[in-house]
Amino acid sequence: MSLLPETRRYAVLGTGALGGFYGAKLQQAGFAVHFLLHSDYEHVRQKGLRVQSCWGDFHLPQVNAYSSVLDMPVCEGVIVALKATQNALLPQLIPPVLAENGVVILLQNGLGVEPEIAESVGAERVIGGLCFISSNKVGPGHIHHLDYGSVLLAQYGPDYAAQGITPRLEQVQADFQRAGIPTSLSPDLMMARWQKLVWNIPFNGLSVVFNADTQQMIADPDARALAETLMREVVEGAAACHRQIPDAVIGQMLTNTEKMAPYRTSMKIDYERKRPLELQAIFANPLRYAQQAGIHLPRIEMLYRQLQVLDRLNRGIPVSGWDQLKQEEG
Amino acid sequence: MSLLPETRRYAVLGTGALGGFYGAKLQQAGFAVHFLLHSDYEHVRQKGLRVQSCWGDFHLPQVNAYSSVLDMPVCEGVIVALKATQNALLPQLIPPVLAENGVVILLQNGLGVEPEIAESVGAERVIGGLCFISSNKVGPGHIHHLDYGSVLLAQYGPDYAAQGITPRLEQVQADFQRAGIPTSLSPDLMMARWQKLVWNIPFNGLSVVFNADTQQMIADPDARALAETLMREVVEGAAACHRQIPDAVIGQMLTNTEKMAPYRTSMKIDYERKRPLELQAIFANPLRYAQQAGIHLPRIEMLYRQLQVLDRLNRGIPVSGWDQLKQEEG
Repeated sequence: MSLLPETRRYAVLGTGALGGFYGAKLQQAGFAVHFLLHSDYEHVRQKGLRVQSCWGDFHLPQVNAYSSVLDMPVCEGVIVALKATQNALLPQLIPPVLAENGVVILLQNGLGVEPEIAESVGAERVIGGLCFISSNKVGPGHIHHLDYGSVLLAQYGPDYAAQGITPRLEQVQADFQRAGIPTSLSPDLMMARWQKLVWNIPFNGLSVVFNADTQQMIADPDARALAETLMREVVEGAAACHRQIPDAVIGQMLTNTEKMAPYRTSMKIDYERKRPLELQAIFANPLRYAQQAGIHLPRIEMLYRQLQVLDRLNRGIPVSGWDQLKQEEG
Repeated sequence: MSLLPETRRYAVLGTGALGGFYGAKLQQAGFAVHFLLHSDYEHVRQKGLRVQSCWGDFHLPQVNAYSSVLDMPVCEGVIVALKATQNALLPQLIPPVLAENGVVILLQNGLGVEPEIAESVGAERVIGGLCFISSNKVGPGHIHHLDYGSVLLAQYGPDYAAQGITPRLEQVQADFQRAGIPTSLSPDLMMARWQKLVWNIPFNGLSVVFNADTQQMIADPDARALAETLMREVVEGAAACHRQIPDAVIGQMLTNTEKMAPYRTSMKIDYERKRPLELQAIFANPLRYAQQAGIHLPRIEMLYRQLQVLDRLNRGIPVSGWDQLKQEEG
């Protein structure tokens, strides 16, 4: 990635709440951005992207829209912002668009997706990213960015070994910053992922069980206590993977959640729209890492089981068809 | 209770799915039965009780209906079949209707209610009963008995010490049998209560979380596995209270649940009707007994917390008002 900024190309795989927003910000800043779309392809090809944002609304009347990666040019940065339930597609989607000197930037929650990407492109070309943003796709090519927006990036290494701050990371950070995206770096991707799970596991999971927003949960003494207990289990899981998350993080996150505007988690929104839930990366993989490290996290396991049941009932999936669907989901 | 059968009187406190059915059976068999009613009082006083039953439909055009215990005669048998959420009323309801030589028969699920009744009437006058029945109140004074119907009775003793089979128990059994109610006796009330909780804790609790009937739960591999895990915790709780429930009971109950017609648990029905859930006797008390015996049951604790949250959200109870309501509930 040593080209001049003006000539550096980004591919956005998954032009939704995250990919649509960050891709639009990059294009607005002058980067060449190429968007992969599915259901919104026709609309965006003709009318571009509309971003309603607390940082300022803007409209990109013309964007490079594609319905297949085979039509896209190779890019120095490939931003993966698909729903994690689509991750089984990544081995087919990434290689055709990734330039020889390019990097993959995985903007997803959860754990355990980078190893699969690294298998096809090499660990040194995989960057993990965590988005701290409240954003929704509210219509075709129409993104609504409500609050926050920062990104945390970290270099992936084999078995999630900490890689420190690499020049590649700093290059992507510089591009994102130039596009007005507050971007920080972490020397240890696994630490960053576990730390975000401290919030995502309880609040995404319980928001589906309770059909409640963050404010309803944090205001209820039992929901809050349960979230805290689940947070402690996430911290235990991280510790088993040799990542020491300070205890103070839990209290801090609870306080922050209290102060947040009422927020429907992405998992709750998926549930409401009867879309599959992102259970693999946010629940199954962390549980597997913890188990391989020799510990059980009974409450997270229970919540995971409950979510699998609720997901199935929600989408009316007959039990006999489930094993197959699960495989498809990856 | 040495009177002739014909002159033996029963009071029924709570003329709903259980009290209405068993009380009607007793009256049909010739016992003098006195029914306490609340919302259905006027209707039942004028039109009696209608029982639609898989054992044969019948109608009692005239019953002794009361809206206050102060109007009722004292009775040799006082059947308590209120919702457990009404139990705070028992100290006022029972003494006025209990004859000097009478017994209280508590037909409720869960654990830990007899000690409170024993405080006001004496342990030797308290019998615990568990109903294995599928029955609903479908309208004022209208009971629909769908399946099963047997009752298990056991004598309460201080701290739930096993009392064996007492003459009092045999007397009540004889009356119930005479009324066509299959009635068996247990020498150990606490054992009987824990054993029923092995089913009630998972299936009542999860039916609310999943908004599902027994068939949907037992057919789903994760719901079934979760139920089984919860059952094991109930068995652990019982063991901590020195009641050894054979492991085979779990497999047996799962198999029976598979064979049952799809069944909405009573807790799910309460939830649908936005009535308070019977959490005290079925969750809080068993957890307290286990905790006092020195063990934690993390998954049951988690399910209990979830149900408290769901109950509150379901009834739109502001969190600030909750502590007070909880006290009212007993």
